[in-house]
Amino acid sequence: MKGGLVSETGAVLHSERRPTPRAEGPDAVVAAIRDFISHLATAGDGTPEGVGLAVPGLVSETAASYAANLGWRDVPASDFTTLDVPVLLGHDVRTGGLAESVFGAGRGISDFLFLPIGTGIAGAMIIEGAPYGGSSGWGGEIGHVPVFPDGEQCACGQLGCLETYASAASVGRRYSLRAGLEGVRAEQVVSSDDPIAIEVWDEAVEALSLALATYTLLLDPSLIVLGGGLSEAGPALFDPVRTRLVKRLTFRDAPPLVPAALGVDAGMLGAALLGWRAAGRPDLGPDWSTDVRSAPSVS
Amino acid sequence: MKGGLVSETGAVLHSERRPTPRAEGPDAVVAAIRDFISHLATAGDGTPEGVGLAVPGLVSETAASYAANLGWRDVPASDFTTLDVPVLLGHDVRTGGLAESVFGAGRGISDFLFLPIGTGIAGAMIIEGAPYGGSSGWGGEIGHVPVFPDGEQCACGQLGCLETYASAASVGRRYSLRAGLEGVRAEQVVSSDDPIAIEVWDEAVEALSLALATYTLLLDPSLIVLGGGLSEAGPALFDPVRTRLVKRLTFRDAPPLVPAALGVDAGMLGAALLGWRAAGRPDLGPDWSTDVRSAPSVS
Repeated sequence: MKGGLVSETGAVLHSERRPTPRAEGPDAVVAAIRDFISHLATAGDGTPEGVGLAVPGLVSETAASYAANLGWRDVPASDFTTLDVPVLLGHDVRTGGLAESVFGAGRGISDFLFLPIGTGIAGAMIIEGAPYGGSSGWGGEIGHVPVFPDGEQCACGQLGCLETYASAASVGRRYSLRAGLEGVRAEQVVSSDDPIAIEVWDEAVEALSLALATYTLLLDPSLIVLGGGLSEAGPALFDPVRTRLVKRLTFRDAPPLVPAALGVDAGMLGAALLGWRAAGRPDLGPDWSTDVRSAPSVS
Repeated sequence: MKGGLVSETGAVLHSERRPTPRAEGPDAVVAAIRDFISHLATAGDGTPEGVGLAVPGLVSETAASYAANLGWRDVPASDFTTLDVPVLLGHDVRTGGLAESVFGAGRGISDFLFLPIGTGIAGAMIIEGAPYGGSSGWGGEIGHVPVFPDGEQCACGQLGCLETYASAASVGRRYSLRAGLEGVRAEQVVSSDDPIAIEVWDEAVEALSLALATYTLLLDPSLIVLGGGLSEAGPALFDPVRTRLVKRLTFRDAPPLVPAALGVDAGMLGAALLGWRAAGRPDLGPDWSTDVRSAPSVS
């Protein structure tokens, strides 16, 4: 997990990573978050005015309801900190999308898709200016739309999911399997001219362009923002996906495809926005800088 | 085109159909609508308080911007009537979705999909209580999502669109072509035990279940409402689509799949809601009856 102390001008005064003690169970994870927040609070000159926290799974502003990989159930927001300040929770991907929306690649854009491509794939749908999670908070699972109806089985059990072809983990895994190697990483596959690598990358690009064509036809976004580790591939990702997306669409234009502005910090910066909202400052954010890399970081 | 005179209690005092003079060009179509509205206005005891009009293509509340099959461009709402009353325009499918949302199958449901399946397929996405058309009004084109990436070419030029497998027109066309017959209608295909008919219907059902799985994973609707001519097939449509939708989804439940409540009148009744909204009565609708078939109709 990652945390930081962010000022009202968006300066990252301190940021830090800690391991998540998943194996020790949900109570240990909540306790670790509590300790981490207390620790972060001491990194500044005074007491924070609010706390924002981005968590996976099903979540409302006031409770972390469920997360398959953490095992917790209905943890109230206040359980996550001993600080006597207001707390707001958000969904991890949608909180990253919030930051990209408020002052990142989607600044000033009311309707767009933020799609981080990492170990897995899930999207933040920004609709009429705010992240939209569906009727029950389970929306945005674009990583599991069936792009190839009779395709490979995903870890989720479904067939032909986008994620099983196009996540960074899948690109590495599929290449390693076909090439008879072990532990090849996605970035190595992308930059290789080995025919197997080209084939695996081609299938990832095809899967992505299908999913983005579907998203475009359904939701008519004015922008698509790609983030996460795989987006570091740059033109090797953006160029072919853009070309195929345009080709898939005949009667409408494709939305522009742009890289995320906030990189791996999107989630933390979105959580900072939530923290300031908790503190009664929903006005903060639009003038924050996307250049957060100069901030001191301990990791 | 279809029009009606609808009271503030939702009584359809009069309804009528007229041909749309497409071949005569956009001005003739606008003039025909104008005449039709004037004519409908005389069917009641007084003057209507507002006019609502559902049109295809790109449309805002105040102008019909573009419609490929009608040829018009930027027609102001006021051009559609000579009556001295306020007018509101809506998108045809989303206006039907509005009616289903306010007092039809989606009454009381804030987030759902209304999918009429007729000659073509387009959806009304109801999001947080209102039809959502995307960033520019081109959203909801679920009929053209690529369900089979290497599938048949659609009339739109794209490959493997839902519509080219599962619209009523496509089911009839695909069967006729394979069976070497002419003009077989979808309802005949659905009820036939001819192996070719079973195959064509099976492909339609598969295409629909793929598109609905994708919609569910992305938008997490709490309900899916199927309407249009093909939904008259009843259990022959709903049962297999429901079974396959459930099968496609492993880590989340499928939303309930229910028939539309307003049938072919959804668009007209949605337009009536718009007319009353134009007249300053946005409160009307929730207590209207879905039983509109007893209304006198001239067609």
